[in-house]
Amino acid sequence: MIELRTPPMGWNSWDCYGASVTEEEVKQNALYMAKHLKDYGWEYVVVDIQWYEPTANSSWYHKFARLEMDEYSRLMPAVNRFPSAKDGKGFKELADFVHSLGLKFGIHIMRGIPRQAVHMNTKILGTDYTESDIAHPNSICPWNTDMYGVDPNHPGSQIYYNSLFDLYASWGVDFVKVDDIAASRLYYFHEAEIKMIRKAIEQCGRDIVLSLSPGPAPLEKAHVFLENANMWRMTDDFWDHWPALLNMFEQCHKWSSYVQPGHYPDCDMLPIGHIGIRNYDNGGDRYTNFTKDEQLTMLSLWCIFRSPLMVGCELNDNDEFTLSLLTNKDLIEMLKNTHSSHQVLRTPHEVVWTSTHLNGDRYLALFNISDEVREITFPLHKIYLPNTCHYLDIWTKEQGIINDVVKRTINPHGVCLLRLTTK
Amino acid sequence: MIELRTPPMGWNSWDCYGASVTEEEVKQNALYMAKHLKDYGWEYVVVDIQWYEPTANSSWYHKFARLEMDEYSRLMPAVNRFPSAKDGKGFKELADFVHSLGLKFGIHIMRGIPRQAVHMNTKILGTDYTESDIAHPNSICPWNTDMYGVDPNHPGSQIYYNSLFDLYASWGVDFVKVDDIAASRLYYFHEAEIKMIRKAIEQCGRDIVLSLSPGPAPLEKAHVFLENANMWRMTDDFWDHWPALLNMFEQCHKWSSYVQPGHYPDCDMLPIGHIGIRNYDNGGDRYTNFTKDEQLTMLSLWCIFRSPLMVGCELNDNDEFTLSLLTNKDLIEMLKNTHSSHQVLRTPHEVVWTSTHLNGDRYLALFNISDEVREITFPLHKIYLPNTCHYLDIWTKEQGIINDVVKRTINPHGVCLLRLTTK
Amino acid sequence: MIELRTPPMGWNSWDCYGASVTEEEVKQNALYMAKHLKDYGWEYVVVDIQWYEPTANSSWYHKFARLEMDEYSRLMPAVNRFPSAKDGKGFKELADFVHSLGLKFGIHIMRGIPRQAVHMNTKILGTDYTESDIAHPNSICPWNTDMYGVDPNHPGSQIYYNSLFDLYASWGVDFVKVDDIAASRLYYFHEAEIKMIRKAIEQCGRDIVLSLSPGPAPLEKAHVFLENANMWRMTDDFWDHWPALLNMFEQCHKWSSYVQPGHYPDCDMLPIGHIGIRNYDNGGDRYTNFTKDEQLTMLSLWCIFRSPLMVGCELNDNDEFTLSLLTNKDLIEMLKNTHSSHQVLRTPHEVVWTSTHLNGDRYLALFNISDEVREITFPLHKIYLPNTCHYLDIWTKEQGIINDVVKRTINPHGVCLLRLTTK
Amino acid sequence: MIELRTPPMGWNSWDCYGASVTEEEVKQNALYMAKHLKDYGWEYVVVDIQWYEPTANSSWYHKFARLEMDEYSRLMPAVNRFPSAKDGKGFKELADFVHSLGLKFGIHIMRGIPRQAVHMNTKILGTDYTESDIAHPNSICPWNTDMYGVDPNHPGSQIYYNSLFDLYASWGVDFVKVDDIAASRLYYFHEAEIKMIRKAIEQCGRDIVLSLSPGPAPLEKAHVFLENANMWRMTDDFWDHWPALLNMFEQCHKWSSYVQPGHYPDCDMLPIGHIGIRNYDNGGDRYTNFTKDEQLTMLSLWCIFRSPLMVGCELNDNDEFTLSLLTNKDLIEMLKNTHSSHQVLRTPHEVVWTSTHLNGDRYLALFNISDEVREITFPLHKIYLPNTCHYLDIWTKEQGIINDVVKRTINPHGVCLLRLTTK
Repeated sequence: MIELRTPPMGWNSWDCYGASVTEEEVKQNALYMAKHLKDYGWEYVVVDIQWYEPTANSSWYHKFARLEMDEYSRLMPAVNRFPSAKDGKGFKELADFVHSLGLKFGIHIMRGIPRQAVHMNTKILGTDYTESDIAHPNSICPWNTDMYGVDPNHPGSQIYYNSLFDLYASWGVDFVKVDDIAASRLYYFHEAEIKMIRKAIEQCGRDIVLSLSPGPAPLEKAHVFLENANMWRMTDDFWDHWPALLNMFEQCHKWSSYVQPGHYPDCDMLPIGHIGIRNYDNGGDRYTNFTKDEQLTMLSLWCIFRSPLMVGCELNDNDEFTLSLLTNKDLIEMLKNTHSSHQVLRTPHEVVWTSTHLNGDRYLALFNISDEVREITFPLHKIYLPNTCHYLDIWTKEQGIINDVVKRTINPHGVCLLRLTTK
Repeated sequence: MIELRTPPMGWNSWDCYGASVTEEEVKQNALYMAKHLKDYGWEYVVVDIQWYEPTANSSWYHKFARLEMDEYSRLMPAVNRFPSAKDGKGFKELADFVHSLGLKFGIHIMRGIPRQAVHMNTKILGTDYTESDIAHPNSICPWNTDMYGVDPNHPGSQIYYNSLFDLYASWGVDFVKVDDIAASRLYYFHEAEIKMIRKAIEQCGRDIVLSLSPGPAPLEKAHVFLENANMWRMTDDFWDHWPALLNMFEQCHKWSSYVQPGHYPDCDMLPIGHIGIRNYDNGGDRYTNFTKDEQLTMLSLWCIFRSPLMVGCELNDNDEFTLSLLTNKDLIEMLKNTHSSHQVLRTPHEVVWTSTHLNGDRYLALFNISDEVREITFPLHKIYLPNTCHYLDIWTKEQGIINDVVKRTINPHGVCLLRLTTK
Repeated sequence: MIELRTPPMGWNSWDCYGASVTEEEVKQNALYMAKHLKDYGWEYVVVDIQWYEPTANSSWYHKFARLEMDEYSRLMPAVNRFPSAKDGKGFKELADFVHSLGLKFGIHIMRGIPRQAVHMNTKILGTDYTESDIAHPNSICPWNTDMYGVDPNHPGSQIYYNSLFDLYASWGVDFVKVDDIAASRLYYFHEAEIKMIRKAIEQCGRDIVLSLSPGPAPLEKAHVFLENANMWRMTDDFWDHWPALLNMFEQCHKWSSYVQPGHYPDCDMLPIGHIGIRNYDNGGDRYTNFTKDEQLTMLSLWCIFRSPLMVGCELNDNDEFTLSLLTNKDLIEMLKNTHSSHQVLRTPHEVVWTSTHLNGDRYLALFNISDEVREITFPLHKIYLPNTCHYLDIWTKEQGIINDVVKRTINPHGVCLLRLTTK
Repeated sequence: MIELRTPPMGWNSWDCYGASVTEEEVKQNALYMAKHLKDYGWEYVVVDIQWYEPTANSSWYHKFARLEMDEYSRLMPAVNRFPSAKDGKGFKELADFVHSLGLKFGIHIMRGIPRQAVHMNTKILGTDYTESDIAHPNSICPWNTDMYGVDPNHPGSQIYYNSLFDLYASWGVDFVKVDDIAASRLYYFHEAEIKMIRKAIEQCGRDIVLSLSPGPAPLEKAHVFLENANMWRMTDDFWDHWPALLNMFEQCHKWSSYVQPGHYPDCDMLPIGHIGIRNYDNGGDRYTNFTKDEQLTMLSLWCIFRSPLMVGCELNDNDEFTLSLLTNKDLIEMLKNTHSSHQVLRTPHEVVWTSTHLNGDRYLALFNISDEVREITFPLHKIYLPNTCHYLDIWTKEQGIINDVVKRTINPHGVCLLRLTTK
């Protein structure tokens, strides 16, 4: 499995373009990332769902739409949206472009095989099996109905997944987000297909990050995710309203034991900046509905928890504040080089988290989850620190000495995030 | 809606032949019914699931099997199994044969339209709508995956159902059992499609009994079934083992208020006699596993509750005892001419039911649901009878006078069923 | 067990006087009943809870209040409230008074023995057992904490209950409402004590009606109630607001199978007329909050279901309308002489019930449970009636002929209640 | 609140003597602790439940037993069991004895006030309030019925609790285990009384450890326990059988975030050695039923999680193995000087925990929760360690170098517990 000592950081097309992003839009965001973000650790550029659907034009799906597909039932980029994919070249040229910027390239796929392939009865690459042999006729995704799941008991199923990842490896794909697999509205989750996909990656000869969606991945199966995936979602799609952010505290708390190098429970994309451009899911074309305090809270939680960070907005429309969120070196230092992060207190009004830097420094996050300004106090000794510590405020950059107790006045839905050093 | 003053009585091919019955087998059972059962009220001969599937050979379904279908996506009998269906004649000749015996003809269908039709994109009769316009891509049946449900919000959906029932009316179908509709493993139940089917029957110009499967139909939606269907299942498929029969007492109790002329909660087929011939669902080819006492109990409960009666066995293999169950005139008199049936007592060991004949006579059923012989007593006054009554034992034909209290020694899982007259 | 061919009818002090009724108030209501109601079947006059508590003055209980008690731990009427109880005479004189009017006398008791007795360690009548021997120290009623339950495994417990009912029999008590027994907030229900009380009644030499409270009695234990009690509550205390009345339809539906001569699921008191005089539970001193339509609906449901009827108001303050509710001979005829009552339809807007007179006539109740005027139609054949029937409207006294279908315009929360005759 | 930088360690009389321990037995165990265990950190000697009950002779309670009590309703040691308590001296002399050994003294109490006091109506110290004023008549403990809870809304309740802790302070009590408060079979848990007790301790002028029972304390109220208590139970009583130990892994996992200096979720007593001498709860007089592997597992889990450690056995009967469990300096070093302990993996067969020493060293515990010998492997990098580490096996004392992966063969229900150093 790929070595991935820190959580993946990147950009994903879903929050701004839904199922309809184009090659040009992807390139423009990659260029922005290379210019403004790469130095801070950002590297993945990910094309989300339906890149094989020529008529996709929003976040809504077209029932029984004809999908671009090769002769082995493998979906191919819609050339009208991705011109460089012409002549069966797939994403090779776009991946090359992204790589040329020093970045990495990712795609989204749905679990299973196209329903249209089953009824055409084409063959699986290198076999005499047909698609209908391996398709599982009632393994369906209710919210995107292009695919059937595959039958884990049929030998052709692994061969089919291998053929997919061989193709992606030949294109130069570095990251695959597989959907309808980590949770299911109808069928719990799809453990057997997760394992087949892990095998397909291992045999394809390329390091590929495996990201699983949607959430909530079942907590009681944490070991399956730890053994097979690099990241997996803890919740359903995350959007820019406070109740969703408040809920993420609880999910992070439940999953915090299972954050490990190379294996990251995923808080989902950051809906900051300019989003909803062609994604109609949670309000129209807009700048994020989150207040600035909520954005600091979100970034603080994602980073102290050590979630993957995937930005959801059109990067070229970033304002200064949004850019500042993505280029806070002290924040990203915490994201990358800490361990044992966990919630230490939750009251109806406050949440407190801590984590430990690999060098022994400690982080402390005080969140005001209430709707009023509150003074929050927290004694240093409760996280095993001595009575006197030096602190750096990650957001304000203020530094100084704290004796005994941290005491801060914090805005509603706001945060105080400190790095604490004993020397 | 068809007038149906008494519960339908008939034969269904499922319990003995699964999805694979042939025309010849249907005819032989119809001939038996005409000769031995018709005089007692039995009249429906019903061909169960998959008559459009040429390779069906048991109770198991073939994934993505090619189905016989006309140019308007309407399924047609497989000619290899139903030779008289050749040249697009459908079930016309078989229905004529059944009618010639003085009996009625029924078929089973799955809710929705064939998946294969959707991917062929054929037209709906008399419209420019295609099958993919009306198909609902995630409205699936998980246990038989031939069909998609249809979208109740699309105008073509009603037209499609109308075209189905017009075809069935032209064949002379008297009874349609619609499956995957009264309950759903995934989606509660399908109220909108029930209503479309009701409308399709009303416009087709023929009296057709509407039977809905599978169970359990949701009790809290009783009024939907009462308004639209003639019979509907209270449980999942019923088979010949005691726990299933014991459970039926509870279901009958819950539904007893809603037995009305023309509208009958359905206890499902009677798995008596020779069953399982090509149905592998609950044990192999066999004579029923029920003891004789359990068979009397089953018939007594079905009839005092006023369930439809559909026999599941190969009739031509009936022994004398099995035939006697189906030709008990006093039992069928109770089935046909009573009202207000209800459970009056249930202890851990006993269940007692009563009902009222249209002429005022009363019925009393004492069931021993324990595993031991028990003496069961029941005072006449508890069901508002005077201290002295004349009785007829429905099963033993014994007659006499009862004073004050009925007292009977009853076998394990057995029954005493009495008609009580005050004059 | 007492023969009780029709549901008990009477008056109870709770709804108007809470825990504080006085002898004079009881007498005045008895006098009213004798004069105005007795001829219609009303007969029980019941003193509700806390008659042994000298300081009781409302529907609220006094924690650790000293209770009047004899030397054997049997509670005695508080003489300041019931002067005729002086010199240890108990309720003898009051019962005699009620009997002299041709009526019957009832009392309320709490399950168990007084806590104060346990800590005084007095003896049980005729034994050397002490109260602390039989008391169950954690069998408590959370809403009235005067008593401990008794230990069904101790031989003294039955002796204690016998001593209670011997005392009540000596007073001439005809009806005992036992509370904290048919349901429990903490301990399911108290089956063992129900059976002990049944035995105590059987041995006391007097016919006493046994009424069990509070509800909801557990439906799955119906046979325990049928075997031991004459009436038992289906809900928690019932008061004069529509949601409670609407809920009673569901409870009556669930229990309708178990209405038997002598054994009646109980809808609770009728909160009509002048109530809440010293009962602070659900609003202050008032005339009932129910509209006239709701009162007709309540009486119709109670009577077609065959619930006991206990009036809760100060009878002497009855207006003409309230009195008319209690003196409708046709309604009480239905209450007394019918069987097999059951709900036949429930939609979101309508509920329909039917029952059968012992002479074969039928009753039909159409309830409009919606908040708007509605026309409700119901075909006669659905309850097995011929196409033409004579009808009597129980409330308007209108008579005539109905052909095929009953069609009535009914007020919100209103009812049409008909007696239907075929001759 | 008392400063308590490490989890309390001590002995408790419950597992061996139930409700019946005597002064002499307490003294003998204190002497053993002073001689054999004190140097390793053990210090608390705790007298468990019913020391005020003269007839207590096992782990079973005597209903309505007379309790020793002073004139202010404060329970006093039964002099027949604790002779030094004569003349109203309470536990003063016994506490002095324990202190003289360099140890600390603790007692158990039930929440609330004696029921017997309520019915005697004595006064609360320094007030005119009576016990019946503050008693809550339905706030009961179902498994030990000596007490009523007190009404948090009455001003006398805090005064009463103050009077209790003033008395305990005057005796020299260092530790109070309050029962029927952290969880309730009937009433969730008793937050208001927890807060009153916290206040009572704060005002009494003595440092007293507050331990709350029974479990399971509700996880969603963690902040209430963190703010008010020093330790609180996560489960019901823990005994010596594997399912209980297996379950503790899940509880520790859920609570691990909330282990803080001075505030410890509690795994309950260690049922090792000679237990059940007069405690009949889970088998008779016995040496622990746990295998040696299970005992190592238990100690490893309790200590890496940082639970309080309270030994339950008769110390004077310890064998060498039992004593060795209590005198492992490396184990106790981990218990005392670590933070951020948490589960990092759980499969159906294995559980892995880690924690961090205050000096930066790491601990790793590999548990085999299956019933077979298993080889368990765990890569160092998963807990952020470099590829090469020095290790000390806490149980075998083996030392050496590990490269990349820990790989151990572990017995069923056994453990490998390592301290890992990077230098």
